[in-house]
Amino acid sequence: MSQSWEALVADKKRRQQASIPKEWILTNLPPKETLDVTKFPESSGLLSAKEIEITNAHVDTILQKLAAGSWSAVGVTTAFSKRAVIAHQLTNCLTEIFIDRALARAAELDAHFKKTGTTMGPLHGNVHWLGLPISLKDQITLKGIESTMGYVSWIGKYAERNAVLVDILESLGAVPFVKTNVPQTLMASFGWPETYNLVFGRTLNPHNRSLTCGGSSGGEGALMGMKGAPIGVGSDVGGSIRIPAAFCGSYGLRPSYGRVPYSGSVNSLEGQDSIPSVLGPLSNSIQGLKTFLQGVVSQEPWLKDPLVVRKRWSEDEYRLVEHGGGKQLCFAILWDDGDIVPNPPIIRGLEMTKKALLAAGHKVIDWTPWKHLELCQVANSVFGSGMREDVHATTVGIGEPVIKMSLAAAVPDDNPSFFPKHEEVSAYGLWQLHKKKRELRQEYLNHWQATVNFTGTGRPVDAIISPVAPFSPTPHGTNKSANYTMVWNVLDYTALVIPVSKVDQALDQRKPPHKFKSEADKATYEAYTPDAFKDGPVAIQVVGRTLEEEAVIAMSEIVDAALKTPSAHL
Amino acid sequence: MSQSWEALVADKKRRQQASIPKEWILTNLPPKETLDVTKFPESSGLLSAKEIEITNAHVDTILQKLAAGSWSAVGVTTAFSKRAVIAHQLTNCLTEIFIDRALARAAELDAHFKKTGTTMGPLHGNVHWLGLPISLKDQITLKGIESTMGYVSWIGKYAERNAVLVDILESLGAVPFVKTNVPQTLMASFGWPETYNLVFGRTLNPHNRSLTCGGSSGGEGALMGMKGAPIGVGSDVGGSIRIPAAFCGSYGLRPSYGRVPYSGSVNSLEGQDSIPSVLGPLSNSIQGLKTFLQGVVSQEPWLKDPLVVRKRWSEDEYRLVEHGGGKQLCFAILWDDGDIVPNPPIIRGLEMTKKALLAAGHKVIDWTPWKHLELCQVANSVFGSGMREDVHATTVGIGEPVIKMSLAAAVPDDNPSFFPKHEEVSAYGLWQLHKKKRELRQEYLNHWQATVNFTGTGRPVDAIISPVAPFSPTPHGTNKSANYTMVWNVLDYTALVIPVSKVDQALDQRKPPHKFKSEADKATYEAYTPDAFKDGPVAIQVVGRTLEEEAVIAMSEIVDAALKTPSAHL
Repeated sequence: MSQSWEALVADKKRRQQASIPKEWILTNLPPKETLDVTKFPESSGLLSAKEIEITNAHVDTILQKLAAGSWSAVGVTTAFSKRAVIAHQLTNCLTEIFIDRALARAAELDAHFKKTGTTMGPLHGNVHWLGLPISLKDQITLKGIESTMGYVSWIGKYAERNAVLVDILESLGAVPFVKTNVPQTLMASFGWPETYNLVFGRTLNPHNRSLTCGGSSGGEGALMGMKGAPIGVGSDVGGSIRIPAAFCGSYGLRPSYGRVPYSGSVNSLEGQDSIPSVLGPLSNSIQGLKTFLQGVVSQEPWLKDPLVVRKRWSEDEYRLVEHGGGKQLCFAILWDDGDIVPNPPIIRGLEMTKKALLAAGHKVIDWTPWKHLELCQVANSVFGSGMREDVHATTVGIGEPVIKMSLAAAVPDDNPSFFPKHEEVSAYGLWQLHKKKRELRQEYLNHWQATVNFTGTGRPVDAIISPVAPFSPTPHGTNKSANYTMVWNVLDYTALVIPVSKVDQALDQRKPPHKFKSEADKATYEAYTPDAFKDGPVAIQVVGRTLEEEAVIAMSEIVDAALKTPSAHL
Repeated sequence: MSQSWEALVADKKRRQQASIPKEWILTNLPPKETLDVTKFPESSGLLSAKEIEITNAHVDTILQKLAAGSWSAVGVTTAFSKRAVIAHQLTNCLTEIFIDRALARAAELDAHFKKTGTTMGPLHGNVHWLGLPISLKDQITLKGIESTMGYVSWIGKYAERNAVLVDILESLGAVPFVKTNVPQTLMASFGWPETYNLVFGRTLNPHNRSLTCGGSSGGEGALMGMKGAPIGVGSDVGGSIRIPAAFCGSYGLRPSYGRVPYSGSVNSLEGQDSIPSVLGPLSNSIQGLKTFLQGVVSQEPWLKDPLVVRKRWSEDEYRLVEHGGGKQLCFAILWDDGDIVPNPPIIRGLEMTKKALLAAGHKVIDWTPWKHLELCQVANSVFGSGMREDVHATTVGIGEPVIKMSLAAAVPDDNPSFFPKHEEVSAYGLWQLHKKKRELRQEYLNHWQATVNFTGTGRPVDAIISPVAPFSPTPHGTNKSANYTMVWNVLDYTALVIPVSKVDQALDQRKPPHKFKSEADKATYEAYTPDAFKDGPVAIQVVGRTLEEEAVIAMSEIVDAALKTPSAHL
């Protein structure tokens, strides 16, 4: 009776293919050798001029046009659905495709607008999302749709109810229309932040398809890089929103624990509450991230998910009342984490940011890394403490091999190297890790607060500027470190990714070797050539303290504006 | 070289005795047979009329008198120090006594006041605590003072720095002067919420010394019952603030996780982060609890302790904006938890509260218990998952026996029954408990929100009124259940204890046996007689949702005022 895992996958892939509107299946796709496919949608012939205009627009413009009635929900949903399907054919970024359902909902919303003349949902205030398409990482469940999360054994698991976040997004007027690809086990942070699983295969970077899109929210990243959705939702336990956002040239926000409701979404390592995974948005503008967070928080999610912090959106915090009104901020740049020196494009991105901020009248000092590796080791030990049993429980019944990432490709492996050692970790052992984590978090906060002595602003450093990874997107199978993102998960700091540049063949030449800090440092140095990393996006993170979402968004707007001021680069 | 544990204890007790000002050691103490000692301080001859006035005053009065300069910090500290020392001689409630240090600090504060004419500390707003004495549960550390927490092996552990909370209290102008007794392992919630350890011995209930004061913050409870401090700080992981507050006739607040900084205080089961212990105040008025929380939060404790939630005191929440302005609230009474029917005095306390609230124009409905035992079982499994190793690590080196509570007395026992079974719980096993806990918390929130359909206010139930225990304080060694408090720890609900009455020989006669719900129900019924439980305080809890501290304080003020309106009881 029972099918082999390969047969289940083949059936799932047939069903996925069938969910794509036939008339949108392209016969003029560029060949595999075409690496940068970001420009293809506009010349594909599938998108009208208006659809190109819609999909190139930022979230605030889309919402204004919808609110004015000049764009319809059906029109906007159709435009993004087409572009998402094009993106999928180029990068393999989607898992579930439910455009019919989305268009039916969009038509209802248009009818509501026609009847009432308003886009106002049930919201207080002036947020109105009526008709805004939204993409969701595969783990975020919609009633009646599968959440396989790339596990063979979860094929055919149709969700019985919406995740709390989906209820909230729909109550705001958003239109979910696609779900996006993830790596097997989701544990992108555990040594391979890429996006590959045995159900849906590998997702490619739209800027250079020989490079990884990052992970674990890699499908979201690739979709954003193709402008296939105005807002997408990812999750982040060690960098899984930020790495794909950075690698695909998008913006992404990792909120603190409990700011966005997770309830009802599926996950791996469930019950791992030591360093909780969080949901957060990706978008092509900071305004998109702000729209998402402000809208979600306005719905009092703490009354729907017991793990959400009862904390309203604070306009005071957004106006940077605690940061001198934002007039003269002091940023601190983390040039390296003491373990891996970033590649030339990343250093150039930090230098551009420094120059732009100084030109805008802010202060910039250096950030001294503090027990960066120790913090990351705690995370790896925590994730590893129950990982073997967790992955085993999901894969063994169906005989699904667990993937091992090698330098060149993903190879199924029965005993992958990212598994923890055989000794079982006890609950008491986990408690000892928690003590260590608490001590490190306390030390880090003290370290931050002590900067009040050298900022010259009368305040501690307002935000840290950090690399998102020591490299721009790497060739597939070679993304080996998540330490530049994971450290902020352990500390539960808010972090927002801003795209800064792309790898430049002339500016980003290899430098002479430095005194290597570690094997990983040496390997990172040796792997880099401007050619192998061609066209890869370069990004930074703006990092604030725990539950400082409003302030981090506001400070990121300041950083982004500074970077976009042409004179700053003279 | 190394001493026996008994010798270490004897030395510690000598040092404790020496820390009591000699002239305050009373020779006119009542005999052991005198059970109610609450009235003794006023007739002891040690307190002047003014000192009696000071120690009987509520926190708001004390602060007003200090602010007006009509009472001095030295005068107030002296008065409470004397009364605390009297309380100690009657109930054995103190551990560390550092009155010299407190008086020196009080003198500094008086000098500051004389010089500047203000009691304003570094605070924003109008909170000013200059000269307010404060007692601390033994685990809250002060630089230079031992934190033995009742463990023999911790004798001689002088703290190298203040707990973050102590820094904050001192910055507000408070004067710590004594620390208070706890049970061995602190795990009062784990089957014996009383206060007994092998270093300091047993603390007695001041209302009836044959009864327990509750635990684990039992020293605080007894001290409050004797009016030995205007505000005390306890901790609560399963009822440890609320049970002693209720048993000793005081008010007590269990805030949500992360509202009050815990950093720097010592604890048992450290690293047990699944159901975190929290710090919170006890006082003889709700105003005292509010003063404490508002003051602590005003100091931005999230900049000093990374685990504190960045959430300012909300006047909107205190004004009950989300609860219809408090005009017509709907309370729901938990009459029993489905497992143990409360004793007659407790039921009478709930009935009094219902009557008073109805008379005040509020609505009162019944609360249906929801998986109460399952929630408590999760807590017991979580606490038990690493308890054996934790207690072992602290006691084995020094040879300190672990106490087993029997019906009659505390008996040292090498294999106490509250230890978990021998099978070790793995980290993965703990993750499964976390999943269970999350599901139960989600169901409970849904259960609460669904009451919107029967309150008639357009809102879900505003607060639950719950027993604190199924009994008023029990004879020593027989306090066997913490389920009426622990359930709110698992749910992370805010809970505030209000004293309502005392056991009344006439009104609280035994009832005919009911159909028992459990063995524990039968045992609770059988153990009760009005005589054995004579004079025990009767209390209730007002329970709100997670991080609703401001609203719970405001609603408790409404309940307390209703109970104090004489016409309500006609």
